Amino acid sequence: MDRPRVVIVGAGFGGLRCARSLSGAPADVLLLDRNNYHLFAPLLYQVASSLLNPSDIAYPIRAVFRDGGNVRFRMAEATGADLDAGRVQLSDGSAVPYDYLVLAAGSETNFFGLQSVGRSAWGMKDLPEALALRNHVLRCFESAAREPSAHARAPWLTFVVAGGGPTGVEYAGALAELVRLVLGRDYPELSAGDVRILLVEGLDRLFPTFPPALGEKARARLESLGVAVRLRARVLDADADRVRLSDGEAVPARTLVWAAGVKAAGLAAALHAPRSRSGRIEVDEFLRVKGRERVYAIGDLASFQQDGREIPMIAAPAMQQARHAAGNIRASLEGRPPAPFHYKDRGMMATIGRNAAVAQIGRLSLAGFAGWIAWLFVHLYFLIGFRNRLVVLLGWAWNYLRHDRPIRLITRAGDRD
Amino acid sequence: MDRPRVVIVGAGFGGLRCARSLSGAPADVLLLDRNNYHLFAPLLYQVASSLLNPSDIAYPIRAVFRDGGNVRFRMAEATGADLDAGRVQLSDGSAVPYDYLVLAAGSETNFFGLQSVGRSAWGMKDLPEALALRNHVLRCFESAAREPSAHARAPWLTFVVAGGGPTGVEYAGALAELVRLVLGRDYPELSAGDVRILLVEGLDRLFPTFPPALGEKARARLESLGVAVRLRARVLDADADRVRLSDGEAVPARTLVWAAGVKAAGLAAALHAPRSRSGRIEVDEFLRVKGRERVYAIGDLASFQQDGREIPMIAAPAMQQARHAAGNIRASLEGRPPAPFHYKDRGMMATIGRNAAVAQIGRLSLAGFAGWIAWLFVHLYFLIGFRNRLVVLLGWAWNYLRHDRPIRLITRAGDRD
Repeated sequence: MDRPRVVIVGAGFGGLRCARSLSGAPADVLLLDRNNYHLFAPLLYQVASSLLNPSDIAYPIRAVFRDGGNVRFRMAEATGADLDAGRVQLSDGSAVPYDYLVLAAGSETNFFGLQSVGRSAWGMKDLPEALALRNHVLRCFESAAREPSAHARAPWLTFVVAGGGPTGVEYAGALAELVRLVLGRDYPELSAGDVRILLVEGLDRLFPTFPPALGEKARARLESLGVAVRLRARVLDADADRVRLSDGEAVPARTLVWAAGVKAAGLAAALHAPRSRSGRIEVDEFLRVKGRERVYAIGDLASFQQDGREIPMIAAPAMQQARHAAGNIRASLEGRPPAPFHYKDRGMMATIGRNAAVAQIGRLSLAGFAGWIAWLFVHLYFLIGFRNRLVVLLGWAWNYLRHDRPIRLITRAGDRD
Repeated sequence: MDRPRVVIVGAGFGGLRCARSLSGAPADVLLLDRNNYHLFAPLLYQVASSLLNPSDIAYPIRAVFRDGGNVRFRMAEATGADLDAGRVQLSDGSAVPYDYLVLAAGSETNFFGLQSVGRSAWGMKDLPEALALRNHVLRCFESAAREPSAHARAPWLTFVVAGGGPTGVEYAGALAELVRLVLGRDYPELSAGDVRILLVEGLDRLFPTFPPALGEKARARLESLGVAVRLRARVLDADADRVRLSDGEAVPARTLVWAAGVKAAGLAAALHAPRSRSGRIEVDEFLRVKGRERVYAIGDLASFQQDGREIPMIAAPAMQQARHAAGNIRASLEGRPPAPFHYKDRGMMATIGRNAAVAQIGRLSLAGFAGWIAWLFVHLYFLIGFRNRLVVLLGWAWNYLRHDRPIRLITRAGDRD
């Protein structure tokens, strides 16, 4: 008799953790992802700011499961699923049958319907986007160096970052350091003082979902790095060389980085399943898609209510849900009933520049150097692969000791597949 | 009074060395390159075979000249030059005037008029090509893993490498190791024995320009790695899934890697200057373009005759010529006559797989482990940048100790500039 087949869609924090938790279970597990790597997304901003290489934060998925156990990987993009027939549809037209399905396809950039922004802004949700942003910023430096007048240089050297959450704050800080460490030294034609970095947040503080003191510390730190923080302002529209804000200013800028929001991946809309206002798939207390016994949804794709609100779209709940969903599938395989999920909020952290971070761990708030050390070890701990940890640590040590950004290359892959 | 201006086109081994040799000279030096990095091209095959990162073999040009001396860099592509008016034309339509010009634009892949090959083959002359080849080979593995029959898998797992010089030999050996280390362990669906690597050389031995014993050793080593070496055979044409050879075989293969020849960069043809049969610009004994007092050509772009033949298109003569041309320009600036150039051939070396290499240094032939150690230190010595040397050495140590290929990611840059 064939063993039951579990199909997991997506090898991010949720999907990968779920597959590992099902290793050794009495089932054949097939993990699908459109990329051949697991991405440590919290460090994408370091790729985008020329500090780390893609391979430092990406790990080949097949290498995780090379021990020849019950988990297999296939590089494929799921475009939909027939939940009645029990089949996942792939972009190449084929379909994969399942007995249990775990939907962990994550999230994508949300432009909230701002079409001009969608066309002009640079995202930071995956490796191609982070590399494209790195190339673009370095090209802006080169273009500015060719311009004879300060007026003509300004749009090349003005960078608007939309979104005061961790991604926007971390990227704005890293960009300020890139400017100081690279532009100030490598470009005799330019001065770091010509550069303007503007971080725009619609609410009245940075890190709006965390205690006010953290947002205040982040703002002070960013301003000391030369970043202008504009609160209670939103981006209204943008074109190639101008960004218009809700407070009336039209900023001459050739770069708008969008870190203002994410939404459930497109796969969510392709399923006939109830969704929350944010587009995430509604799940029951056991993390099962409502009305389905054997279909789970976890992470950014899933809308799980706790204490009257959706739990946030970050790595920690995705990994907790992944372990939990794997446990419920194992229970079902063994004829036991599923257990309800409860999210344990362990806090948040974000770096701001070279050796400062803010962290909220339970009731403990950390900032400055202590926060940075905590941030360092937590991130190294969750990074997959010994080589990656080693190389990332070396990269950080290099940056710390040499004040440099070693990966400042403008390079394309030249693909044609 | 303005100081004389020296314009150098190309920041490869020749152009970069020439600019460094002119550092401190009584002239303003402007170095142009279409990329913002100097590329250590001899290790491109290690990027193409998932061992090294692009940033390991590329170094930001501006970082070389950041001391604020008389050398400046501009990222720009030279498309031609008006040698009578003393101006270099750039791809953005502007022009740069010069008093002295050094042409060091290097070479590009030569398909010898084989149009079908030009469309189908993968080159390895720059970073985008090496990354595209890496992505393609890894995608072939993934595609093969999806095919149910050995017949359907074969074209995905057959790799034809054209050219038995150092590039072809090194890549074929590195690919064989990639297959053994990655495909054999990461793909339970596949077996390393399903893979066929065919190295095709038109002459009767590998390394045809070096002593026969080296070619023989390389062949034996490649065959022990599982590479089939086909001598006295050439590629006639190719399409998406078939490569036809001059010995009559039609090889079902989705990958043809072209390492069978290079020719002078397109810039050579855009100048009104005499060229040799190989398309290189003819230079006099002082390395000056024939008929021009203040225009030098060096490296792959220049045809320099010595002992009745053109000196080869490799790094060593380019760097010797660069120093020499810089010396002649300094002489001219100081009113002294130029000196004739003489190439000192110091030998060649190539690695074949993990810990073997062949080397010819003067009369000394090295092979196996001793050759490899020599290769290692020579390559580290010429690599620019302390961090690069460190990271490359770590990469090699990793490969050596862990038998792994860490950078096996299929990733694109997603550019739109």
